[in-house]
Amino acid sequence: MSVKNFFRVHFYETDLMGVVHHSNYIRWFETGRVEFLRAVGISLNDMIEDKILFPITEIKAKYFQPAKFDDEIELETNALALTKVKMEFNYKIRRKNENEILVSGYSQNVFTSMETGKIIRLPDKYFLKLHNAVIEEME
Amino acid sequence: MSVKNFFRVHFYETDLMGVVHHSNYIRWFETGRVEFLRAVGISLNDMIEDKILFPITEIKAKYFQPAKFDDEIELETNALALTKVKMEFNYKIRRKNENEILVSGYSQNVFTSMETGKIIRLPDKYFLKLHNAVIEEME
Amino acid sequence: MSVKNFFRVHFYETDLMGVVHHSNYIRWFETGRVEFLRAVGISLNDMIEDKILFPITEIKAKYFQPAKFDDEIELETNALALTKVKMEFNYKIRRKNENEILVSGYSQNVFTSMETGKIIRLPDKYFLKLHNAVIEEME
Amino acid sequence: MSVKNFFRVHFYETDLMGVVHHSNYIRWFETGRVEFLRAVGISLNDMIEDKILFPITEIKAKYFQPAKFDDEIELETNALALTKVKMEFNYKIRRKNENEILVSGYSQNVFTSMETGKIIRLPDKYFLKLHNAVIEEME
Repeated sequence: MSVKNFFRVHFYETDLMGVVHHSNYIRWFETGRVEFLRAVGISLNDMIEDKILFPITEIKAKYFQPAKFDDEIELETNALALTKVKMEFNYKIRRKNENEILVSGYSQNVFTSMETGKIIRLPDKYFLKLHNAVIEEME
Repeated sequence: MSVKNFFRVHFYETDLMGVVHHSNYIRWFETGRVEFLRAVGISLNDMIEDKILFPITEIKAKYFQPAKFDDEIELETNALALTKVKMEFNYKIRRKNENEILVSGYSQNVFTSMETGKIIRLPDKYFLKLHNAVIEEME
Repeated sequence: MSVKNFFRVHFYETDLMGVVHHSNYIRWFETGRVEFLRAVGISLNDMIEDKILFPITEIKAKYFQPAKFDDEIELETNALALTKVKMEFNYKIRRKNENEILVSGYSQNVFTSMETGKIIRLPDKYFLKLHNAVIEEME
Repeated sequence: MSVKNFFRVHFYETDLMGVVHHSNYIRWFETGRVEFLRAVGISLNDMIEDKILFPITEIKAKYFQPAKFDDEIELETNALALTKVKMEFNYKIRRKNENEILVSGYSQNVFTSMETGKIIRLPDKYFLKLHNAVIEEME
């Protein structure tokens, strides 16, 4: 399953090399995760209300070409692994309607209890939505 | 009473005009408040542990000259008003050992209860530290 | 003339008070200016190509209520003054379809030459677009 | 060769999970590179004046424990590879005077011409400083 979101590059996301600062693509990946989860029916605000957090444990990014101020960006988010203990996503960033990948990336996160700070297994109310989305995909 | 803190301009704080993005000075003001409070013996982490928040209610900034990547910055923070219901600070940003003011600013914040979200009066354990700092100043 | 743009609050725009960090509204104001200028036919990338920069000289913001993660935001940008030497805008930030103003703001910017760093008068090719937009409004 | 720099976690670097947002460690890595290069006698501003840029081509980070607001951070930057075509660094982030690694990371960057945007070989005036620093180390 793959989810796309679209947005403009903001002026404040550029640096003095004249292009988007490399740290901002990592922030964009986050917007891709949020939209992926929204697409399968999961709101992170609901998880927060249930005292579940989802800290990032690993990030990778490869930078091929820079995005520039005011570019229209397409971010494609793919689920690699969605289990009760972690989520792994891949990301591809392109200019809208272009094939060339500007930046690709990967994230891994776990789930933790807001109260204990310890790693927990994702409750079924959330997990089944992820599971169904991926199963439907494979059928 | 006036407190100074010093830091370098980071690359990621610049934008494609080649200078510091104007929003970052607002972030720097925050570091000035934190150091001012530390100087009078107040730790914001203690306030947070006591379920007290300190949301900003007003910000002003005037920009005269830009700071540039790797500049050594001096931020001077002055208290304008420190009461049980609000804090007001003035800020002056210069390059270290230079007189010219690059950016000046102002912030106002109140105190709120983390639990109710409502405005509260600052408990004496914090207020007296602020008060003493200002009184000593005036004597 | 008033221009609106809409966006979601990103997770990375929040701070440990659980709401949007106050500096990010200043960044959002910038997106409002960009969309206002786009609406009157002006691309900041064209100006940059013409070696014209548009540094901010003054910012004000009043914070009434915080925006929260994943809120859908409406940013209303109004031109106060659009002359050959400066632009002044007012901003109102609300949740989409709500009347209450969360944050209001003001910005002033001038125009400078990328080559000399000095203040310049905005060339007619840009100024007339601004002027026409405002004149049409008044008729 | 290893270079350390020290700084406080800023309030604006936290997110609503109550800890530093994961993207900010990527920004901190940048401060480590800058200080490493300063330690061997290289100023990025000199490189920019010579029309040389240093875009990031790859980033990796592993997150073990979160840094928190006002923590005093020690960032250790090690050079993995310093050639005329690329630089590779490793990073270790700890609380000051603690052994536990909070976040580890890696960056790779190349050198490009500001004028053509193409990859270039680093001129000797910069390369020899890097080379000497690493050679001295190995003797």
